[in-house]
Amino acid sequence: MNAEIITIGDEILIGQIIDSNAAFIGKSLNAIGVSVYQITSIQDDKTHILKAFKEAEENADIIIVTGGLGPTKDDITKHTIAEYFDDTLVQNKEALKNIKHLWKHYVKQPLAQVNIDQALIPSKAEALINAYGTASGIWFSRRNKIFVSLPGVPYEMKALITDSVIPKLKATFKLPFIYHKTLLVYGVGESIIAERIENFENNLPSFIKLAYLPSLGRVRLRLSAKGNNKEAILEEVQQQLEKLTPLLEGIFFSYDEDKPIELVIGKQLQKQKQTIAIAESCTGGEIAKRITANPGASKYFRGSIVAYATQTKIDVLNIDAQLIQKHSVVSKEVAKAMAKNTQQLFGSDYALATTGNAGPTKGDSNADIGTVFIALATPTKTLVEEFSLGQHRFKVIGKAVNKAFEMLQKEIFKN
Amino acid sequence: MNAEIITIGDEILIGQIIDSNAAFIGKSLNAIGVSVYQITSIQDDKTHILKAFKEAEENADIIIVTGGLGPTKDDITKHTIAEYFDDTLVQNKEALKNIKHLWKHYVKQPLAQVNIDQALIPSKAEALINAYGTASGIWFSRRNKIFVSLPGVPYEMKALITDSVIPKLKATFKLPFIYHKTLLVYGVGESIIAERIENFENNLPSFIKLAYLPSLGRVRLRLSAKGNNKEAILEEVQQQLEKLTPLLEGIFFSYDEDKPIELVIGKQLQKQKQTIAIAESCTGGEIAKRITANPGASKYFRGSIVAYATQTKIDVLNIDAQLIQKHSVVSKEVAKAMAKNTQQLFGSDYALATTGNAGPTKGDSNADIGTVFIALATPTKTLVEEFSLGQHRFKVIGKAVNKAFEMLQKEIFKN
Repeated sequence: MNAEIITIGDEILIGQIIDSNAAFIGKSLNAIGVSVYQITSIQDDKTHILKAFKEAEENADIIIVTGGLGPTKDDITKHTIAEYFDDTLVQNKEALKNIKHLWKHYVKQPLAQVNIDQALIPSKAEALINAYGTASGIWFSRRNKIFVSLPGVPYEMKALITDSVIPKLKATFKLPFIYHKTLLVYGVGESIIAERIENFENNLPSFIKLAYLPSLGRVRLRLSAKGNNKEAILEEVQQQLEKLTPLLEGIFFSYDEDKPIELVIGKQLQKQKQTIAIAESCTGGEIAKRITANPGASKYFRGSIVAYATQTKIDVLNIDAQLIQKHSVVSKEVAKAMAKNTQQLFGSDYALATTGNAGPTKGDSNADIGTVFIALATPTKTLVEEFSLGQHRFKVIGKAVNKAFEMLQKEIFKN
Repeated sequence: MNAEIITIGDEILIGQIIDSNAAFIGKSLNAIGVSVYQITSIQDDKTHILKAFKEAEENADIIIVTGGLGPTKDDITKHTIAEYFDDTLVQNKEALKNIKHLWKHYVKQPLAQVNIDQALIPSKAEALINAYGTASGIWFSRRNKIFVSLPGVPYEMKALITDSVIPKLKATFKLPFIYHKTLLVYGVGESIIAERIENFENNLPSFIKLAYLPSLGRVRLRLSAKGNNKEAILEEVQQQLEKLTPLLEGIFFSYDEDKPIELVIGKQLQKQKQTIAIAESCTGGEIAKRITANPGASKYFRGSIVAYATQTKIDVLNIDAQLIQKHSVVSKEVAKAMAKNTQQLFGSDYALATTGNAGPTKGDSNADIGTVFIALATPTKTLVEEFSLGQHRFKVIGKAVNKAFEMLQKEIFKN
């Protein structure tokens, strides 16, 4: 079962926004065994939209379109869909009821004609009611193909995909089983790994694919299998993993649940009823940001301090000015003191601290660009590591954040 | 002049990564007057890649491909391009020299055959040397069309686009002038704006397009004009703006340079030689994160505290426990005290503080979900505002961050 995702909007093509909708839809479809054959992004242009619809219908069983359902003149998707299906727009009662409800509760202004017009839906389509906005989703079924049009506003689209589209697709099609297993590998690049596992890779059965996903300081190896017999697939992937992991000795870190490491850490801290606090210099709040992106973080996250300036380290983190004087602000000693003081200040079980130079110019120290010290205060000791993370600001920050989470993960999973 | 961007990689289609490459390329092309006709994302599949190449060549003058140039078996783009152009791969001296250089300086391990093979480039193509990785870009020219293949690793792709592809395209084609002007509008939704400016919109000349870009708590209106006569275009857009802005009285906030608000604020603070510090509760570090994402932030950003737990507000921010007891932790009084104490603690000119309830459940207070207090301490006073930001965690956080930046922007631009 193949799908094509079509995202419509000039703002995507001029690069004003990054199209995160397609990734969300791709992930959701994949999870129910639908392969995404292609993602196509096009302008709000009728001729081009019609052409994309036609091509998608030739190649895919399921076509999911986002964008261009708003109330303004640049939103032409709905009229274009009606034309494509040789249909006319009629007022949909459920959609109108939803618009009136949203207006009454959230907008508290009179309904304009353009808002009422948002209840116009092609007569042969089913309206998918949008709990978060006035643009309904549109569901067409023709010649065993499903055609869905959704608003481009991410949270509206997400709710419609999860609550309406996925359940309806599962009810419509008999879908195959898709299984991904991802291994996290550290310390060597993908070419070294490829040489190590060349034989393994050449002997993989055809229904299992291997992908290398390199990112800052790590490579993820993903095995993907697809078929109708769930048990047979799980069994075969398991057998392949038993061949693969010994080949990765010394560099294999963990299976990756495709969950961010901060989520795995948060779950474990919560389980152990422990807490964490952070002091960030060169990582500038990125560690805290990633932790607090998850609801429920308040159960294990006590708080954090971004101590950018040296004076802030002294004033807020109570670091001894003489210690900084003696060892420099980018040093093992200062990192350790930052972690310890943060642990004390916040009364947390663990505290992470970073100090380093992310570039592009040297800051309050003479440390080389890319030099980062990360310290971790645990209930029993304070660890510190020095890293040399390259030359580019975003790479240094990104790698430092990953290293910090890895240090923390190793320690908390020892318990 | 039309371009198509083709991004290749299973990880895009299964939604494991969000394709940010296409947006960067789209923005870069747009800035030199090249319109992006379509963005197409496809799997690492030879037949499909060849089909996409053929279709792109029919529709576009410039085809830019990313992904699939790595050293591993799942990277098939290079071989597929060679086949498409009926060409063979030969060792490119410059590319090999670059690989050896990178290996010597960064990897410090022996070169594997797969790395040497990365110097293989189609014989009719030009290699675009990649300063940050071993996969060279590939530049083909055929029948007045340009075909460029780039690695998918974002920072490698970005450097190649900026340093090689854009200068070469400017040297190859005579390009039109494209101009965007974006207006930031607050307080009403896009449908209300559309009604207000209906006449204006209907009378726009055909070479100027108007787009509505709604996001959390604001709408951006973008005028886009394109043509060969730069002066005439700037003149016409200016005339249209003079018609448009009076129609937006009371809701027009500022022109948007398509620069993030935190960058505009940072520039202004730096100009005024002033500093800022932040205390974040419900926004969880997002404000600090957005400030420190910009190099040079250390010049005006003193630091921040994420004070998630009530106890942290007492211990770290020195908020009087009785004040919290009396007014609740989500209150005007606590927000003001947080801002004032942060200003003092960090010795900054300004301090922003947020306290609120982002949901999904109530935290240390009984405040309604969506209630957020934002306080701003300035050199002369402390302002505080109460907001009611809806029901969804990410919306509440996103809107609160925007509101905080807006409060700050208004104050610092008064000077």
